[in-house]
Amino acid sequence: MVTSSKLLDTDDPMDPVTNEPARVEFETHPSRYKHWKLAVDGDVARLVMAVDADHPHRPGYELKLNSYDLSVDIELADAIQRLRFEHPGVRALVISADLDRVFCSGANIYMLGLSTHSFKVNFCKFTNETRLYLEDASALGGLASIAACRGTTAGGGYELALACDEIMLVDDGNSAVSFPETPLLAVLPGTGGLTRLVDKRKVRRDRADVFCTTAEGIKGKRAREWNLVDHVVARTKWDETVLARAKAVAAAQTITRGSAFALPALGGTVATAGAVDSLAYRFVRLVVDHATRTATLDVTAPDAVEDPDAIAATGAEPWALRAFRELDDALLHLRFEHADIGVVLVRTHGKHDVVRGCDEALAKSTTGFAREVRHLQRRVLKRFDNTARSFYAVADAADSCFAGVLLELALGSDRFYMLLDDKGTIGVSTSVANAGFHQTCTNMSRLEARFYGDPGKVDAILRRGAEGAIPTEEADKLGLATVAADDIDFADELRIAVEERASLSPDALTGMEASLRFVGPETLETKIFGRLSAWQNWIFTRANSTGEHGALTLYGQPERPQFQWKRT
Amino acid sequence: MVTSSKLLDTDDPMDPVTNEPARVEFETHPSRYKHWKLAVDGDVARLVMAVDADHPHRPGYELKLNSYDLSVDIELADAIQRLRFEHPGVRALVISADLDRVFCSGANIYMLGLSTHSFKVNFCKFTNETRLYLEDASALGGLASIAACRGTTAGGGYELALACDEIMLVDDGNSAVSFPETPLLAVLPGTGGLTRLVDKRKVRRDRADVFCTTAEGIKGKRAREWNLVDHVVARTKWDETVLARAKAVAAAQTITRGSAFALPALGGTVATAGAVDSLAYRFVRLVVDHATRTATLDVTAPDAVEDPDAIAATGAEPWALRAFRELDDALLHLRFEHADIGVVLVRTHGKHDVVRGCDEALAKSTTGFAREVRHLQRRVLKRFDNTARSFYAVADAADSCFAGVLLELALGSDRFYMLLDDKGTIGVSTSVANAGFHQTCTNMSRLEARFYGDPGKVDAILRRGAEGAIPTEEADKLGLATVAADDIDFADELRIAVEERASLSPDALTGMEASLRFVGPETLETKIFGRLSAWQNWIFTRANSTGEHGALTLYGQPERPQFQWKRT
Repeated sequence: MVTSSKLLDTDDPMDPVTNEPARVEFETHPSRYKHWKLAVDGDVARLVMAVDADHPHRPGYELKLNSYDLSVDIELADAIQRLRFEHPGVRALVISADLDRVFCSGANIYMLGLSTHSFKVNFCKFTNETRLYLEDASALGGLASIAACRGTTAGGGYELALACDEIMLVDDGNSAVSFPETPLLAVLPGTGGLTRLVDKRKVRRDRADVFCTTAEGIKGKRAREWNLVDHVVARTKWDETVLARAKAVAAAQTITRGSAFALPALGGTVATAGAVDSLAYRFVRLVVDHATRTATLDVTAPDAVEDPDAIAATGAEPWALRAFRELDDALLHLRFEHADIGVVLVRTHGKHDVVRGCDEALAKSTTGFAREVRHLQRRVLKRFDNTARSFYAVADAADSCFAGVLLELALGSDRFYMLLDDKGTIGVSTSVANAGFHQTCTNMSRLEARFYGDPGKVDAILRRGAEGAIPTEEADKLGLATVAADDIDFADELRIAVEERASLSPDALTGMEASLRFVGPETLETKIFGRLSAWQNWIFTRANSTGEHGALTLYGQPERPQFQWKRT
Repeated sequence: MVTSSKLLDTDDPMDPVTNEPARVEFETHPSRYKHWKLAVDGDVARLVMAVDADHPHRPGYELKLNSYDLSVDIELADAIQRLRFEHPGVRALVISADLDRVFCSGANIYMLGLSTHSFKVNFCKFTNETRLYLEDASALGGLASIAACRGTTAGGGYELALACDEIMLVDDGNSAVSFPETPLLAVLPGTGGLTRLVDKRKVRRDRADVFCTTAEGIKGKRAREWNLVDHVVARTKWDETVLARAKAVAAAQTITRGSAFALPALGGTVATAGAVDSLAYRFVRLVVDHATRTATLDVTAPDAVEDPDAIAATGAEPWALRAFRELDDALLHLRFEHADIGVVLVRTHGKHDVVRGCDEALAKSTTGFAREVRHLQRRVLKRFDNTARSFYAVADAADSCFAGVLLELALGSDRFYMLLDDKGTIGVSTSVANAGFHQTCTNMSRLEARFYGDPGKVDAILRRGAEGAIPTEEADKLGLATVAADDIDFADELRIAVEERASLSPDALTGMEASLRFVGPETLETKIFGRLSAWQNWIFTRANSTGEHGALTLYGQPERPQFQWKRT
């Protein structure tokens, strides 16, 4: 039913309703960066923020003073990813700016003021994920990062620094780190800053309170005393000190990432037919139907078991990497371009043994490349968990393939519908990928989260799964299916469930899913997405920030904001 | 400056702006309950919900079908408190209803629809605290609870049941437990329900998803299978089974609560002079100045060290109990009656050694009564932590007394301003009350939370504190003061800080404080107040719930809600 087809294009027209770009290009390459300069020298890489004011994500504002928007952060995310795969020799990343007195002035305020609530929230979520990827690269990939702040480091700029392992601030009597969001804009530093201040850097909460309400920020010795930064460095000794620190940090890394692998372009193909948009890659396909506000997300297994190292050595991309990069890209397009889509049906296709074989090969490999592929899968599955749509996994065809790492998609979905077929050909199967291999943001596996407080059930499933595929009837008894129904009822039951879900309030569903998905212990990550983001969501809707007389609305104008004084 | 004075009166007029009662009476007594019947029989108490439809908290709606509002929950909180102190022999509390086919239909929807955002949020916070008190009574006070649900148990009604140790549901083919909030009202079950489902009762998250979107709920065997309830009981065997279960639960309790103590009325006195309202009790005084949107909260120590058991034996109320009950009441009045107040200055008065002596006597006592007093202090301090106002503790007078349990108020405040006086008479002192005696909702002490990740600092302060009072200069060096200033600067610095704080957006401050106050590990309690409440705050502001065509607004009317479909 597809009637037109073209490559994703950043010059696509604006959406007439939201006046946001109708399509967003998440794929990029250092050769096309507009806002960053990436340079690699031995075990140290330098990523220099040089935001091009004239190339914002959408018309209507200029990216002055190294302020950022989605287009800037897409490049940052790309750079971190490429350093992990394409420059395994790099052990330290220095993030700096090409301005003399400004490191980064944070998210662009005019952009926030012009954006819809949905865009603002998704922008914050993406930037939060990117900052977590910096920490992930350090903790799991042997790529530590240093924020080299030779000038004003404000708001989201300081939040970027907080995500690095070390923060260096120039001691010039003027340059400060600051969170002006609350005093100047009546919103929160929403990219993890509040959480990282007290939970990661362990800044005393009363000092954090003073810091977060002092618009001009804190500089020099006091910034160091309060642990807001790790080093304060004179301007005259800046370059040599940063380099020495980078070298020392690089030398301290113990994880090696193995052979370089150049990430090929994904080149997804978009097509539109009436109210249906589709986005197709090699292994992943996303079809959205705006008439019913539902989508289907299909993931296909490879034809044969792959040894990821052997394939990568030929320059080709193993399925384990390719399929998950495609899935990642599809999830981002879903989030940013199809806000009206409430329910996503997740289907998988292929042979169970092939996926399980791929999982085993990936798990067995001791190369740095294979480990990086595993970590990428983990990050993408977390992106899936954090996507504010109702996911219903569906196993209803003979080629359904919720096996191993693809079973994680069913376990991460809000519900799992399984068809009970006469021959018992439909089922699930487990692999090493389900046994603590892919931790969620609570550091539990998805099976552990599903059977929270009942580890015996997890063990029983993994034992049973080791013997082979588990047909629907047995999977249902083991607690893996939400709904198991036979041919007579299945299609109707699923259809009604989807229609009902699509009829519910999207806001209530987002809050409900965020509360049910992340059981058990909390982490910095769940605090950021669960607590901080929820407060920011609320604050963004309040008149005090985004109303006619709100601080965000009036930023940069002579008129002072007018507040409604009621505390909750 | 007080010009008029009268007792709190529930017949006070309505606030002309919000049309909510200008004053709320939080003190009550079983003899005055309108909505509950309390009966004690040996080791089992019965609390029967019999909501009087004609006595809502404010005019404009009827409390039909055992739906509840603030007035109903104030009585429930009172009953739990009195059972702990006045009926120490009671080991099991059975909560039931006097309706034949309805247990409780949840928070009254029309009340929510008529209420301001600020009231809704504070109402939810209070009901959340009351439900946590049920769990606290069981875990710490040897008072277990059983929800005996002989009929429809919907929304907040099921959330009340979830806070009990056991849930019994009648098996009559009709009575179900349900969360209709999301499908019918486009909001969340906001009184801890979502968190308790998956984290406390460990209901599988996909089943929780189905349950929370199924308006009619789940009944009978399936409710038991999904662990939504503990027992399903035939109507014919209802009374005997509930009684047998209550007896068994009572017999299983291991904590005893000691001698009965009848809680005297607090009898606070209110007065108004221009824009200043004051509320005075024996040891606590709250003065709010609506012109500057600031308040002062004063807590005074007793004249002499008290042995709580000896005093209670005479029928008098020890300071350790009285002062904290007064503080609790004052905090509730602040929350519900003075939403415009953004900053609260907390001052203490008395002799350090007296407070420390009271703390030691309370800690040493092995009686159930003393333990209950300690737990009450703990609950009140948590209510303080969870109050969405900026608290600045101030030690600026010779009689300032941030000692022991009163130092907890400074540690719980957002900032602590200390005057550096020439003679070193102003300072702080520690006692057993600061050494893990009063845990916050993260299960850390307030000192541990202040020096999160640095237990050495906690030890150093407790060691130093054991030697005697710590003057301001030394307290500052130890990290206890946020700001220490001398006579020349102190008053100006504090005045400017208060004025600045009072000028900031109340919403941003609420989100900021909620993010900075609760560092470290999360618990069911922090998940409820930090995550669930934040999502609900947001959802309550969205057009899909409270807009002109929102589901909450249109509840009970023929018109169907119209939703804006954008997912975040």
